[in-house]
Amino acid sequence: MVEWAEFQNRKKLLGNYIKEQGIDVFFVFNPYNLFYLTRFFHVSTERPLVYAMTADGKAHILSPALEEGEARKLPVVDSVKGYFEFPGTGDILGDFFASLARDGNIKARADSLSLGRYQDLQKRFQDVGLSDAVEKMRLIKSPYEIGLLKKAAVYANFIVTEGFKIAKPGMTEMELLSIIEQKTISKMVQELDEIIYVPGGPAGGLVPSGDRTALPHALPSARIINQGENMILSCGANVEGYRIECERTFFLGQPSARHREAFLLMAQAQKMAVSLMKPGAGCRDIDNTVLDFIRDKGYSDALKHRVGHGKGLEEHEAPWIESGDPTALAPGMVVSAEPGLYIDGFAGFRHSDTVLITETGNELLSSVTRELEELIY
Amino acid sequence: MVEWAEFQNRKKLLGNYIKEQGIDVFFVFNPYNLFYLTRFFHVSTERPLVYAMTADGKAHILSPALEEGEARKLPVVDSVKGYFEFPGTGDILGDFFASLARDGNIKARADSLSLGRYQDLQKRFQDVGLSDAVEKMRLIKSPYEIGLLKKAAVYANFIVTEGFKIAKPGMTEMELLSIIEQKTISKMVQELDEIIYVPGGPAGGLVPSGDRTALPHALPSARIINQGENMILSCGANVEGYRIECERTFFLGQPSARHREAFLLMAQAQKMAVSLMKPGAGCRDIDNTVLDFIRDKGYSDALKHRVGHGKGLEEHEAPWIESGDPTALAPGMVVSAEPGLYIDGFAGFRHSDTVLITETGNELLSSVTRELEELIY
Repeated sequence: MVEWAEFQNRKKLLGNYIKEQGIDVFFVFNPYNLFYLTRFFHVSTERPLVYAMTADGKAHILSPALEEGEARKLPVVDSVKGYFEFPGTGDILGDFFASLARDGNIKARADSLSLGRYQDLQKRFQDVGLSDAVEKMRLIKSPYEIGLLKKAAVYANFIVTEGFKIAKPGMTEMELLSIIEQKTISKMVQELDEIIYVPGGPAGGLVPSGDRTALPHALPSARIINQGENMILSCGANVEGYRIECERTFFLGQPSARHREAFLLMAQAQKMAVSLMKPGAGCRDIDNTVLDFIRDKGYSDALKHRVGHGKGLEEHEAPWIESGDPTALAPGMVVSAEPGLYIDGFAGFRHSDTVLITETGNELLSSVTRELEELIY
Repeated sequence: MVEWAEFQNRKKLLGNYIKEQGIDVFFVFNPYNLFYLTRFFHVSTERPLVYAMTADGKAHILSPALEEGEARKLPVVDSVKGYFEFPGTGDILGDFFASLARDGNIKARADSLSLGRYQDLQKRFQDVGLSDAVEKMRLIKSPYEIGLLKKAAVYANFIVTEGFKIAKPGMTEMELLSIIEQKTISKMVQELDEIIYVPGGPAGGLVPSGDRTALPHALPSARIINQGENMILSCGANVEGYRIECERTFFLGQPSARHREAFLLMAQAQKMAVSLMKPGAGCRDIDNTVLDFIRDKGYSDALKHRVGHGKGLEEHEAPWIESGDPTALAPGMVVSAEPGLYIDGFAGFRHSDTVLITETGNELLSSVTRELEELIY
């Protein structure tokens, strides 16, 4: 059962914003914003697929023929204009823009714009600019969204726990990833009503081993996993468009003293990050406090990234737990807590939890053990 | 052994173009163009990662700390400027642009520009615009690139052939995909020196079954495959950044008369498309001829897309075998040949081959059987 009431409400909220701001047409080019407003997921390609809301609150979609049938089924869209193909022989975008630019239309806002589309819009509208209205709507998660994130957490926890059991010396990173992905997807197929195939797949992640753990975004490789090394299972799952991440550092055999020291500092910093995440806390202050704690312990060279980022539809989304983001956390925001230490040529250490900000503090949506002694296999 | 001479040559060609055009700085924002010039692959996120070539032919990279170590290893890059994080507290992009905008710098070109970056560049350069110089370089594949595409073809053929054997009634689409992906990746890990983890993975694709084959871009679902249905294995593989696609329609049990008629028309149109792909042929003419042939047979309602598109680094790239692209095919171009028929609520039919244009005609890089009687399992 799809909860269309949630999407009807989002449509109404965007309509109210457009009316208040005196905008004539609001364009959505970002596929995640389009999904947020319509529950229509598509793989973004060179073929333009655009959502536009007019001042009367009506929602319009321009779609290639490939996806037109899907677009026509959406109860929260009032009109669909199809076109055959890219690049096409006519002025596909220009004609769509013109169909929305009736007399008196002067003000267009968009969620993102390439230079080419900006110039196209300038031909039809007098006042063209960017607006982050949809990103702002996405910042606070509704009970519906939190429900889906909690469902996704079951599979994010599962894929990491399976990874602990299945990782063995002699296996490559890619083989490990492909086995745990397959097991998690099979479980999802059996248990869920619907799976939306987002980029990155319904479940998956990165699984660096040994010295490759020092690369924070080490993509899965053909490296063979060895006894005595650490690994980072940087995994997640997506349910009906909503993503949870759960990342854990663990060991294949007893860690060395150097491994232990860095692991324990990371685990302490991660716990501190979670404890600081509550309503009213400034994102930049959390980042500064946690990274300064690590710097004070003599590990400043081991820092390669911020403490965290928002979670929801995208792998990374606002707010940013980083010194450049002054946003204050508020109930309903969902962020990752993941300070990491990376020692080049040796190893990296990172746990990440997905944290829901509540009225009184926070709730951890991911829940796999974070304790060293339980992470030695 | 990485063939850096190939990348040194690409750098020289872009340098020559910049000199000829009197450009002061050429910016590359597209991650595939950046890979083409440097062999540096990264997963594009909110953190800016930019390549810039100055008029002296020197290549500069702006990189987040996460990827800075990788960027510093590149022999075809002269300087790397790192920054800690996004969004950051300083003017990260502005400072990078300013460092390249020495006295007299007035003309900047970029491969793609968002409105925000266009406005940032306008603060530093007098004349800012788009250029498709790198896309044009990528149009004709070198012997090095063709070698990698032929290596990728081995795995594209393998994943489809495995799919024929493994698909069974009672299995879901997602389970089938995850098994054939895992088998193909295991083979790649054993046989290849290096695997670059591109979006979509080293091997994978779409595997719609039954009435879902009528959706040209049907993402893998939890639908159970049934006896008597057709499937489309729309698969591919990527070796060192280069992608091959191989797509085949096949049957689980004897096809009905209605299946046969549509399949045979598709197969005839696909053969016609391949036969028309030779030096001098216009992309738009091939599209018009093949789609008109299908329309003349009474199947115009079953058309949902063009005949094909370029292949190389991206899933889809120029040239486009479509009525809006006047490009004439030339030796070294690589394109897909894939006219498809889609009957809503019944089934879809598509074979796709990756076709290399040669001096005298073409060569098929993908090579799995296209014959109906051999595609009944």
